[in-house]
Amino acid sequence: MIKVGIIGVSGYSGMLTLELLLKHDDVRLTYVGANSTQGRLDQIWPHLKGKTNLTCEKFNLKKALEAADLFFLAVPHTASMKITPKLLQAQKKIIDLSADYRLKSKQAYERWYEVKHTDTKNLSQAVYGLPEFYREDIKKASLVANPGCYPTAALLALAPLISTRTDIIQSIIIDAKSGVSGAGRKVTQNLMFTEVNENFKAYKVLNHQHTPEINLYLSKMAGRSLKATFVTHLLPINRGILETIYVQVKEKISESVLFNLYRKFYKTEKFVRVLPLGSQPEIKDVTTTNYCDLGLAVSKDKNLIVLTSVIDNLMKGAAGQAVQNMNLMCHFAEDKGLV
Amino acid sequence: MIKVGIIGVSGYSGMLTLELLLKHDDVRLTYVGANSTQGRLDQIWPHLKGKTNLTCEKFNLKKALEAADLFFLAVPHTASMKITPKLLQAQKKIIDLSADYRLKSKQAYERWYEVKHTDTKNLSQAVYGLPEFYREDIKKASLVANPGCYPTAALLALAPLISTRTDIIQSIIIDAKSGVSGAGRKVTQNLMFTEVNENFKAYKVLNHQHTPEINLYLSKMAGRSLKATFVTHLLPINRGILETIYVQVKEKISESVLFNLYRKFYKTEKFVRVLPLGSQPEIKDVTTTNYCDLGLAVSKDKNLIVLTSVIDNLMKGAAGQAVQNMNLMCHFAEDKGLV
Amino acid sequence: MIKVGIIGVSGYSGMLTLELLLKHDDVRLTYVGANSTQGRLDQIWPHLKGKTNLTCEKFNLKKALEAADLFFLAVPHTASMKITPKLLQAQKKIIDLSADYRLKSKQAYERWYEVKHTDTKNLSQAVYGLPEFYREDIKKASLVANPGCYPTAALLALAPLISTRTDIIQSIIIDAKSGVSGAGRKVTQNLMFTEVNENFKAYKVLNHQHTPEINLYLSKMAGRSLKATFVTHLLPINRGILETIYVQVKEKISESVLFNLYRKFYKTEKFVRVLPLGSQPEIKDVTTTNYCDLGLAVSKDKNLIVLTSVIDNLMKGAAGQAVQNMNLMCHFAEDKGLV
Amino acid sequence: MIKVGIIGVSGYSGMLTLELLLKHDDVRLTYVGANSTQGRLDQIWPHLKGKTNLTCEKFNLKKALEAADLFFLAVPHTASMKITPKLLQAQKKIIDLSADYRLKSKQAYERWYEVKHTDTKNLSQAVYGLPEFYREDIKKASLVANPGCYPTAALLALAPLISTRTDIIQSIIIDAKSGVSGAGRKVTQNLMFTEVNENFKAYKVLNHQHTPEINLYLSKMAGRSLKATFVTHLLPINRGILETIYVQVKEKISESVLFNLYRKFYKTEKFVRVLPLGSQPEIKDVTTTNYCDLGLAVSKDKNLIVLTSVIDNLMKGAAGQAVQNMNLMCHFAEDKGLV
Repeated sequence: MIKVGIIGVSGYSGMLTLELLLKHDDVRLTYVGANSTQGRLDQIWPHLKGKTNLTCEKFNLKKALEAADLFFLAVPHTASMKITPKLLQAQKKIIDLSADYRLKSKQAYERWYEVKHTDTKNLSQAVYGLPEFYREDIKKASLVANPGCYPTAALLALAPLISTRTDIIQSIIIDAKSGVSGAGRKVTQNLMFTEVNENFKAYKVLNHQHTPEINLYLSKMAGRSLKATFVTHLLPINRGILETIYVQVKEKISESVLFNLYRKFYKTEKFVRVLPLGSQPEIKDVTTTNYCDLGLAVSKDKNLIVLTSVIDNLMKGAAGQAVQNMNLMCHFAEDKGLV
Repeated sequence: MIKVGIIGVSGYSGMLTLELLLKHDDVRLTYVGANSTQGRLDQIWPHLKGKTNLTCEKFNLKKALEAADLFFLAVPHTASMKITPKLLQAQKKIIDLSADYRLKSKQAYERWYEVKHTDTKNLSQAVYGLPEFYREDIKKASLVANPGCYPTAALLALAPLISTRTDIIQSIIIDAKSGVSGAGRKVTQNLMFTEVNENFKAYKVLNHQHTPEINLYLSKMAGRSLKATFVTHLLPINRGILETIYVQVKEKISESVLFNLYRKFYKTEKFVRVLPLGSQPEIKDVTTTNYCDLGLAVSKDKNLIVLTSVIDNLMKGAAGQAVQNMNLMCHFAEDKGLV
Repeated sequence: MIKVGIIGVSGYSGMLTLELLLKHDDVRLTYVGANSTQGRLDQIWPHLKGKTNLTCEKFNLKKALEAADLFFLAVPHTASMKITPKLLQAQKKIIDLSADYRLKSKQAYERWYEVKHTDTKNLSQAVYGLPEFYREDIKKASLVANPGCYPTAALLALAPLISTRTDIIQSIIIDAKSGVSGAGRKVTQNLMFTEVNENFKAYKVLNHQHTPEINLYLSKMAGRSLKATFVTHLLPINRGILETIYVQVKEKISESVLFNLYRKFYKTEKFVRVLPLGSQPEIKDVTTTNYCDLGLAVSKDKNLIVLTSVIDNLMKGAAGQAVQNMNLMCHFAEDKGLV
Repeated sequence: MIKVGIIGVSGYSGMLTLELLLKHDDVRLTYVGANSTQGRLDQIWPHLKGKTNLTCEKFNLKKALEAADLFFLAVPHTASMKITPKLLQAQKKIIDLSADYRLKSKQAYERWYEVKHTDTKNLSQAVYGLPEFYREDIKKASLVANPGCYPTAALLALAPLISTRTDIIQSIIIDAKSGVSGAGRKVTQNLMFTEVNENFKAYKVLNHQHTPEINLYLSKMAGRSLKATFVTHLLPINRGILETIYVQVKEKISESVLFNLYRKFYKTEKFVRVLPLGSQPEIKDVTTTNYCDLGLAVSKDKNLIVLTSVIDNLMKGAAGQAVQNMNLMCHFAEDKGLV
């Protein structure tokens, strides 16, 4: 039984992390703090009534350090890099759901997030929390950078191909569609019901801040520099991401070869399901779960691969993956509390 | 050809009034002003691109008076009562889509809207713009108070019964459900997509500001004081209201008697459709139209009537009815620009 | 560890019961059969991939009897009363999610379901599976009739008042709104996406088959015959019911008296949450849970009570309540597998 | 005033064509027939109550020929090629909303629609009804094949580039997303509300029957054979298509050059709106209109163009474009009845 804390609970990721931890048999939630939100958790989130008596206090480092040994940071980016160094110094373990430690380069961070990075010291030590690729590193990590939702779906879809057949990759286009909770819980005109409902649009075209994260880890997997084209769209649903990924290849590849490659690659992975050829993944089949479902197709001339990838952006794309990372860091069963 | 102006175009009612006027053959839109919004209309509302070259200026009384003869006020309540007296003084005609002139009593207004009424002088002269009941008054009116969306659906449903059989009415319960645009275009947490989608709730239970408007005009129709119970709910759709109205009666009434009463009452009304017994109105059948569809049912013991009423809250509940009122005031065909 | 079986898995209730049982630590799912559906469960329901290797066989009584000791019947009405007598004869325990054993009167059943009841012998022995009222009977029951979704929300909302202050009840009107899964998984024109989305309507007005079930148990609770007015509507959401219930009372009652009555009545109930005065329940707060949330309000003249009740129709309204009943019948913790 | 007929009114395209014609000042609807649907139009489509007294008769060639001079065929494919030759023989004009005359090759039709083409004689004479490209041919045509919804959005987006810079095109990927009405009004499990709502998926990946139509007209515009990759997805909305189109180019192109090309190309087109650089089209801005809105972006390295195109699949993608074609064939103003 380990003692865990959450910092930041007013957003969807923090709230869902909280719910997962309340149901997790091997941990005790001993600290909940936030910068701007305070009070009983069942008043902040009325649906939690009867599930917890905990309160969220104004974040207090000293109390936090006394109360728990592992922390989830569900705070906005920039808030995380202010807290993280202090927790690390006190030998605490951290799973950071913000973007602050995902990119390895201060320059890249500052360009895409348009703010100065103030903790470059820990940037290099952070482990990218995609368990299917960095499992052993995560087990030993003190600081895990929980991946972004779009990169999770993209990397899980592309990894088997990129990491084994990097030579044949010619170009990669990722057409991504996300439900509204992916934008967090911001109160803005363009996320009002009447703006989103019965509507669909592309946004931040060729300019989304998850682009460098995708390219960084794709390149790591490939062992060479890769740049994907990345376009995002807003779906009129609460939760879920689907990415349709077009990979042009220099060498013909058949559907069955591709399928066998993927099946083998993910054979022992609990949370990645490769669908049979001819089947396409649907967002509803992964909603509220930690699964990533993958669909495969190849053009008749065998020069173009179409990958489709779905996740729940709040689960495998945020809170679920965070708990999966905690399970690894604490040597629990990897799927504990997630099935 | 008359010259009309709109004051207030950043909300849904103002925008839709604008669209209806642009398509109306007998009027020319010669003035568009607003207090806080300025610029090209096709930039304020991108879907209007190619439909108009007009701009919205910072409201300027002098310019407005020179430019047009009839004005639609699509401003928030309290803003209307500041402008209206000046327009009236200049002999202009006004259709006020706000709540400022709907209630006849300063006291009632101040209690329900929690703000002082500063133009009680014109309160008594305003004509309530429900054409099916006040057609002749509207034709001669200078100031028309365009009805609220909920009252429109309620009054059209109840009028035939209330105005002809007031003696048998025992109690009235109005269970109302509205799409999100009924709340206007406010940017608030509780109208965000993720709060409304896949959700449903009651709000302002027994305390909605349309209650006194409903009771005032029900009482006028009945010739005696009537008080309805009124509860509102928020539907996860953009547009449309459905009200389910329960009327307990002191004297048994059969479905066929009720049906004949309603058919006869609305025989010559273009915009009220009484459905055959056994049919129930659906919001989708009136969306984007100026119709009010009514369904009728009576309990087996004949002591309870169930009326169902649907309108598009932005059309018959706001902009459509406003144009219908203008048609009457200007002696155009009543359905001009509305079919 | 007990061995349980499910008969019927192609509908939403059967599927969800299956999911709940797969996660329940104290039971082993040892039989899955159906009349018309066969095959691997993860092919019938693709989202179950990786969660179960079970197959659904063509229902075979002999095999079923050998395999399990307690059965969930998630079959259409009329199918249940064909299977139930045979299972009872073999000393099996049954939780019937169909309507076949909810009404105590053969006549009422035949009038509302328009089909002959062929097992009136067991009709009288069946226990109505609303744990909050019939907990002790359920613990000893062999056959539990799992309540309908609408009656569950209505009875939980009305019980405290009806069972303690039956003398002051004058009339009851239940205005009910349900998500689409309440209609099951039928493939019909009126449940198509384009018919339901951006739409809302009343259906089966004053004529819904859950009416006699509501009236039967309301009358039992009251100790006298009560008849509620019941009107149902179709919400454009997947899951959830909200009922707005209007109770006219003969004797004035204050909000605080009412609130105390409800709080006390449900003080020890895990799955009923009485909200503070001024709060209204929302469907999203109970979605995917077994909770029923209740809101209370009283008119200014204290003669009318407005109760609002929300449940997830597939959980507390079907599969969740069925598992709660199993927990009672098997002497497990009542909330096992439900939190 | 010309006399027009509609054959087929039970689908969305037929219904919407009907509505547009009822509001069109220059035509009189003198014949409505269908193979399987008969009766009053306001009973087939209740929302039409009060708008028309017409009835739909069992299709009768003789009566049809006597009644009207121009016909809209809103029948399923294969039904059209049975009726069309007879109407042509009687010198009638035809706008066919089905797929029967869109492809010029009998072989292509038979491969993609998996049914024999029985009227190859007229296949070659049919004019493809995309007014922005074939306006002069349409004016003189007897038989117009109204384009498919997906091809309309794709061709309008690609035409300026393809027809003027064919030399630089390297590859084209069309990622298309459509609302549910695009699938027509079929009653099937996968179009039920609970299957589509809160869901999103790809379907017919690399295998949609609109593929050859897109490739045929792209190639005509390019003056050389072009093959686009085409993947379709199902959006949980009623109406609207958005296509995100990725064009890899062999020669660098800047955003401003591209923008000027598009602006110039569509300068005089009423129904195509090229948005300013930095703006992205939204489905809601074209819903219920005949507009196609286009957005443009170019990657930093200037080798990849991202086009975004939105239409209402029932308007510019079907009925609206059909009426636009009629206006051309009858020498009415091209936007008559469409604004």
